[in-house]
Amino acid sequence: MDADKTLVSPQTLKGFRDYLPADMAARDRVVDRIKRVYERYGFVQIDTPILEHLAALLGAGGEETNKELFRLASPEDEPVAMRFDLTVPFARVLAQYRDQVKLPFRRYHIGPVFRADKPGPGRYRQFTQFDIDAAGSASVAVDAEIVAAMCDAMRAVGLAAGEFRVRINNRKIVDALLYGCGVERIETHKHILRVVDKLRKVGIENVCRELGPGRIDDSGDPIPGVKLDANTIDRLVKFISAPVSDRLATVEAMRAALPASDASDAALAEMITLAECLASLGVEEVDAVFDPTLARGLDYYTGPVFEAELPGAPECGSVMGGGRYDGLVERFLEAAIPSTGASIGLDRFIDALTRCGKLDADLTTTQAMVVSFPGTPEAALLRVAAELRAAGIATEVYMGAENTGLGARMAFAGGRNVPVAVILGPDELANNTVAVKDLRLGKEKRKDIATNEEFRKAGRTAQRTVPRADLIATVKDVLKQYEVSK
Amino acid sequence: MDADKTLVSPQTLKGFRDYLPADMAARDRVVDRIKRVYERYGFVQIDTPILEHLAALLGAGGEETNKELFRLASPEDEPVAMRFDLTVPFARVLAQYRDQVKLPFRRYHIGPVFRADKPGPGRYRQFTQFDIDAAGSASVAVDAEIVAAMCDAMRAVGLAAGEFRVRINNRKIVDALLYGCGVERIETHKHILRVVDKLRKVGIENVCRELGPGRIDDSGDPIPGVKLDANTIDRLVKFISAPVSDRLATVEAMRAALPASDASDAALAEMITLAECLASLGVEEVDAVFDPTLARGLDYYTGPVFEAELPGAPECGSVMGGGRYDGLVERFLEAAIPSTGASIGLDRFIDALTRCGKLDADLTTTQAMVVSFPGTPEAALLRVAAELRAAGIATEVYMGAENTGLGARMAFAGGRNVPVAVILGPDELANNTVAVKDLRLGKEKRKDIATNEEFRKAGRTAQRTVPRADLIATVKDVLKQYEVSK
Repeated sequence: MDADKTLVSPQTLKGFRDYLPADMAARDRVVDRIKRVYERYGFVQIDTPILEHLAALLGAGGEETNKELFRLASPEDEPVAMRFDLTVPFARVLAQYRDQVKLPFRRYHIGPVFRADKPGPGRYRQFTQFDIDAAGSASVAVDAEIVAAMCDAMRAVGLAAGEFRVRINNRKIVDALLYGCGVERIETHKHILRVVDKLRKVGIENVCRELGPGRIDDSGDPIPGVKLDANTIDRLVKFISAPVSDRLATVEAMRAALPASDASDAALAEMITLAECLASLGVEEVDAVFDPTLARGLDYYTGPVFEAELPGAPECGSVMGGGRYDGLVERFLEAAIPSTGASIGLDRFIDALTRCGKLDADLTTTQAMVVSFPGTPEAALLRVAAELRAAGIATEVYMGAENTGLGARMAFAGGRNVPVAVILGPDELANNTVAVKDLRLGKEKRKDIATNEEFRKAGRTAQRTVPRADLIATVKDVLKQYEVSK
Repeated sequence: MDADKTLVSPQTLKGFRDYLPADMAARDRVVDRIKRVYERYGFVQIDTPILEHLAALLGAGGEETNKELFRLASPEDEPVAMRFDLTVPFARVLAQYRDQVKLPFRRYHIGPVFRADKPGPGRYRQFTQFDIDAAGSASVAVDAEIVAAMCDAMRAVGLAAGEFRVRINNRKIVDALLYGCGVERIETHKHILRVVDKLRKVGIENVCRELGPGRIDDSGDPIPGVKLDANTIDRLVKFISAPVSDRLATVEAMRAALPASDASDAALAEMITLAECLASLGVEEVDAVFDPTLARGLDYYTGPVFEAELPGAPECGSVMGGGRYDGLVERFLEAAIPSTGASIGLDRFIDALTRCGKLDADLTTTQAMVVSFPGTPEAALLRVAAELRAAGIATEVYMGAENTGLGARMAFAGGRNVPVAVILGPDELANNTVAVKDLRLGKEKRKDIATNEEFRKAGRTAQRTVPRADLIATVKDVLKQYEVSK
């Protein structure tokens, strides 16, 4: 190294994160399982570049996302930006490849997206989304397929009945209610839904005050109200109080709150069809409920909206959300392509799964580590490793500093959470044997042991020396108790 | 849609590309197979952000990559850039997590990297790398592990003996030769290796001229020579002419060309150990050869260097390359961490595999498509789909425009290259049957058929109507002839 060289401080950018092996093993496991579900539903994978023309992104996600774009210039000095979601690129692909990508088209897409907002706990400027979308049909049956895929995805990562819940609402119902009450301005609709969205946080009484004249919040600040009349507030309260029970019952409760109109009838009929389709797909009532309080993304969606949460990790909020958006492709194309879809915020979902005890913190894909005394001929170690790998056992050969002793090497293997150590020392080499140690059992046995001597003895009970020919069988025997990442 | 809205032209950025489903199925298949190999070698996965501090990247890859960085500003207005490879982020991770990431550490990493250079056929500004690296050991046994993993990766994607070749050289040998001949300047070493690198393109005679006084190229332009003396050129020619046969034989042929010195002895001894380690790992002679003409990346690597090529796709050049770099972490840390690794250029590799006929162009993960006559109740279709999916069959329900006829729907399914169509029309619904069609057989049978009537008849022979209860068995019977993507 040059004597005058300045060191660069090794630092992840603010708001960004690295995935070390245990993080990555967890992400990979979740992605793999969900991929298999989505492929079973006929979604096929695409990928698009990280960078898009600025014009393609600007305005697609509203004022907020405009401000949060990471912008730069292309080598040709065009304005470009890093994508902020995977839905706009999907819309671009639909418009750009009209001849190649035949409709209907259902795709999945996994990739990082970027938002230059304020980072915080669990909030990153780069995060991974895992999206499904189906384009080319306005049928609510496709919305049902999306919801069924969401539920199967939740099940596939180990969540049982009651451990997750997909909530479903429909913008058309809310619109029918508000138009029926004479609320015409779309900006007022949005305002109302922002208020309803706070229901869980502030309670029904405060929501009513905010729908009416407004209220004073805990800090003494005034919150201006929507100034709706009493009749409209009554209907809204009745609507959002519709009991969340079985799906058809909730539709009937919603009906009781709606003003009679063709729009109400059409919206309710759509929900009934959705309920029938969900039943045909075998979606359990407990997994997906109709919930009139779900207010999600009203300025974007045009029909059913969905959101999934884990009751065991309420602090993580929504881990997956989506809905029908029949207008997005119109940014790019002189035609509407009706579409619906859902997106998992993978980082937040993994966080929630971990909090719910559904993901081990110490996943590893490596099953065995070959460990030796310093000075053991490397070729001998490699032969053992090659044999283990040929038997399908994921194996690392410990190759670190030459002067590291066996104890430190074993501790290293234990620290990696590898289940098995295969030990090859002078005795083993001379006698044509190997020592196979169950590292997790060894750790277990050593708990609550005080003296060094007992500690060593306890560790040894998890170890057996076997003829070289029994290597594979012995390792497999230990491994069968432990699941690895895949 | 607003009447005054301007359409955004849907366009991929210059030098960037989209992956449509068939591209992505190919990439996913290759990645999956190689991942399994690398995990078997004990590599564990990490991921790092797309963006790094500019200082971390500047200078790490030389003048050329400095110029090719996509630069931008963080929200805090710091200079940042998109990563140009995965090796520098690996070095950063090693330095940044000294307490968490214990050495030795072997990791794999798959992700996009960015270079703002001139795009061309097969040259993109965003491309995917798939890297393995092992840090913390200076032992050539680890280099052998890297080479063995490379060979296994090649085998795993379907390349047989002779269909790929890993070439191996060692910077220490070349250095021993040049220092032994009195060539001291490292810049001259680099110049010589750039000349040797042209051997395949220009032939040995032109290489000799360029090593000596220089030559005039085909266009009449003068190429300045390195101006080596005749003895050094003789030795170099003898060295690079060492026959590539079995590995130990090549080492002996190299020895004959080297001036006697301690450095020569040490370098040759290292190659012999490498050969022994490769033999212990079961690496076939045909898969990995010692090749004195390999000149790869001399200003970066410090020991063995590797490169893989597919003789069946010479126009794709090197699809994988790497070597030992014992100095890179020193950018970040007041200590050297000896490291070695290899990187696959995934896009180019997939291109080469396709040219060698190792990847179908029409891979799909979807196995069956449920197709119906317009007006068939959607709930009935969804029930069939749910049943197929529960049996593990990846199924799409055709849901497109309502007014599309059955013929067009069948053609659509055929175009997607889905192997099976499950047809549910009024007759099938009334009789509680389903029609199952082998779409690929149907396509095959229709080849060379002229009349419409014969065409329809031929198509029908690939189709059978079975009781509803036999659905799964019948579909599985068709599917068993066709491999899908995974």
